[in-house]
Amino acid sequence: MAIQRPKGTQDHLPDGSPKLSLDTQASAFQDVQDTARRVLSRAGAQFVSTPIFEEAELVKRGVGGSTDIVRKEMFTVYYFGDHGGFILRPEGTAGIVRSYLQNGLKQLPSPLKLWTHGPMFRAENVQKGRLRQFHQVDYEVLGSADPLVDAEAISLMVDVVSALGLTGVRVKLGSIGDPADRDAYNAYLRELFGAHVERLSDDSKDRLERNPMRILDSKSAGDQALIAELGVNPMLDFLGDEARAHFQAVQTYLNAWNVTYDIDPSIVRGLDYYRRTAWELHHEGVGAKSALGGGGRYDGLAEQLGGPLVPGIGWAFGIERLLLAMEAEGLDVPASGGPLLYVVALDDQFVGHAATVAMVARQVARAEFAYRAVKPGSAFRDAGRRGAQFVALIGSDEVQGNVLSIKNLTTGVQSTVPTRDLNSFLGDHLEQTGTAAAHGPAVPQENA
Amino acid sequence: MAIQRPKGTQDHLPDGSPKLSLDTQASAFQDVQDTARRVLSRAGAQFVSTPIFEEAELVKRGVGGSTDIVRKEMFTVYYFGDHGGFILRPEGTAGIVRSYLQNGLKQLPSPLKLWTHGPMFRAENVQKGRLRQFHQVDYEVLGSADPLVDAEAISLMVDVVSALGLTGVRVKLGSIGDPADRDAYNAYLRELFGAHVERLSDDSKDRLERNPMRILDSKSAGDQALIAELGVNPMLDFLGDEARAHFQAVQTYLNAWNVTYDIDPSIVRGLDYYRRTAWELHHEGVGAKSALGGGGRYDGLAEQLGGPLVPGIGWAFGIERLLLAMEAEGLDVPASGGPLLYVVALDDQFVGHAATVAMVARQVARAEFAYRAVKPGSAFRDAGRRGAQFVALIGSDEVQGNVLSIKNLTTGVQSTVPTRDLNSFLGDHLEQTGTAAAHGPAVPQENA
Repeated sequence: MAIQRPKGTQDHLPDGSPKLSLDTQASAFQDVQDTARRVLSRAGAQFVSTPIFEEAELVKRGVGGSTDIVRKEMFTVYYFGDHGGFILRPEGTAGIVRSYLQNGLKQLPSPLKLWTHGPMFRAENVQKGRLRQFHQVDYEVLGSADPLVDAEAISLMVDVVSALGLTGVRVKLGSIGDPADRDAYNAYLRELFGAHVERLSDDSKDRLERNPMRILDSKSAGDQALIAELGVNPMLDFLGDEARAHFQAVQTYLNAWNVTYDIDPSIVRGLDYYRRTAWELHHEGVGAKSALGGGGRYDGLAEQLGGPLVPGIGWAFGIERLLLAMEAEGLDVPASGGPLLYVVALDDQFVGHAATVAMVARQVARAEFAYRAVKPGSAFRDAGRRGAQFVALIGSDEVQGNVLSIKNLTTGVQSTVPTRDLNSFLGDHLEQTGTAAAHGPAVPQENA
Repeated sequence: MAIQRPKGTQDHLPDGSPKLSLDTQASAFQDVQDTARRVLSRAGAQFVSTPIFEEAELVKRGVGGSTDIVRKEMFTVYYFGDHGGFILRPEGTAGIVRSYLQNGLKQLPSPLKLWTHGPMFRAENVQKGRLRQFHQVDYEVLGSADPLVDAEAISLMVDVVSALGLTGVRVKLGSIGDPADRDAYNAYLRELFGAHVERLSDDSKDRLERNPMRILDSKSAGDQALIAELGVNPMLDFLGDEARAHFQAVQTYLNAWNVTYDIDPSIVRGLDYYRRTAWELHHEGVGAKSALGGGGRYDGLAEQLGGPLVPGIGWAFGIERLLLAMEAEGLDVPASGGPLLYVVALDDQFVGHAATVAMVARQVARAEFAYRAVKPGSAFRDAGRRGAQFVALIGSDEVQGNVLSIKNLTTGVQSTVPTRDLNSFLGDHLEQTGTAAAHGPAVPQENA
């Protein structure tokens, strides 16, 4: 058997591939990225990109040493003679904040809106919606603690998802308060659960010391039964005055913009650096346990990475999960279609000529050619299979007369076109059909 | 000091960042990718993507066990409890051929043209044009051994580079023949250098057994002096009849299409799977020792990976090297520009209203807003700094009258626009200036 790809990874394949699903279709990823680019760049966000691997210390400090990600799911990277201190990035925020600090981006107008997309890595148990290499779209705003920034971030995340045509997305909104509020809540939880240590799962016994809030997130049925039985008060009840006012302001903006959401008093975060606003996007198509994505404020992160205080907020969604949700709603992505022109030589000696004609046509549109001479019947069949709109035939009559015999496969109309007029012939057709973009992978124009 | 990125990696930064160079500018990478997409999709190539890490065995078989890449420059990836058998991909071809075999892409029309772009990894000594994470654009054609496919591939590589505005690129073209031809050449070299073993560098003593052709590529001055002294016959002299006819046909096509090139009789390949046509693109801007990129035919690769015989050919160039060459020629990428509209509240109570106005405007164009109330003078200064074309001011008069006071920063003309007519006002402006694409990161329309 030929060598296979690593478990938990996927290839992104051309349209028309066998057994294609939306979450393995390359043009579907492109469509999500293009849609995110259109929505986010209109809001003034600039695209950035950070390395695929980072110092292990960045991931530990940025994601939190007590999280499953750092304790169980890190891919370590080393090379001959190296100490092995690199990690494949499990998420995008830590790298972007590191990049902001290292490259002096504080000098740019504030708040600075950045976005990225790319692969992320977690050595998880592979299942639906959980891959070891997955892909995210990620939006981050640095330099402002204003609740207006939070509301705009949530609204933009909803805009991206809506622009893709998804209707079944629900926003769950919460707040995890300021550090003092979390300390108070953790003290409450430690006391509450401390009286029932023997009933906690081993993982949650561990969490009781490290990070009691994460007990609420436990996947253990026993833990969840205990939580229900104890009637645990939510984090929201522990918000201080400032965090409460901030949370209220975020909601006021969202209401004004008709962004619908549900308050989720139980929302907690696996990542240590989050503050105040936290939210998740859910969709039935990816299963109850998995979110499409989430976001939150992380004012403490830059300091944790060794920099000054830089308030920040961001979100990310998993592109594969978004594509599963789209598939569940029966949504599709624009088909890449076929070439505008397919050029065929009727005799071997004219194959080079056919290639040259196609290359000239590529100045205005997608054009392909047959690498071998075929008969007219086969030419029409091949062209149809490739989704071509026009077929140009080249035999000895055409070469001698410096013309092309062109057939419109939609209308059946045949015409003889001087070779030097080919591009104006094709240009007329592009104009009539309104746009050239029908012939090639869909790349929406930025601000049209 | 805050945590820094790993040695040999770069961040891709927003326009306007301090100390920005073309090879760290995110929009420059985007421009190269968009240009490659336009050129390659018009030729019928479809975008694909493969995982960042692959089985070590794939890289060893695909790239060749005797190469520096496999022997010295591999990044190994492991996770808790794993054997560590993964490698960060050093190049794109092996993964794409693996993907072609694993996903049954043979069922698609042949020859199948694929392309990709993305990060590649080699643990090299870091210097100008040599990074540990670098980025490539990669084009592969599978399913045909026709020399027309080779000539088209070379022509497309030149087209991408030309479309970026580069003029100083030189194509060096050669052939490394068929396996029997290479065996004959290696036997010749083994005999020739075997008589002077004591003068070879240690690396080249090693190569004398493993792969004598690679001695010709040696970076050792002593080796190069010996090569010059011995008057080594080039590989081209050892081509068999079939490889010679193939090489001649490639040149005939290139000549017909006015693609200029120099025959380089000394061209050899570090990668074991190449056959027949091989070429490199060079540019003074990246230094004499480094190529912009290269390509070649690799008919033997699919079998080496455990699949059937699938003829193939491909090329890749380094995006960072291309950007160094562009910088050397004084070329730039389209500026991302500023927002079409910048909305400013003159009083704190109207900031939310300003945000809402900007969000409505984003349906047609890039629009930003001030997160705090400012005075008109500051509003104009901030808008100018952000590169905005229009500023909309919102005070109590505007809110009461449901209008916006808008100033065109180019012409200085001020007008009062009903809030509900904002998008048609902006739309008129977009129409007058011909295209919306001036206001946002440049994404060329696919086939315009």
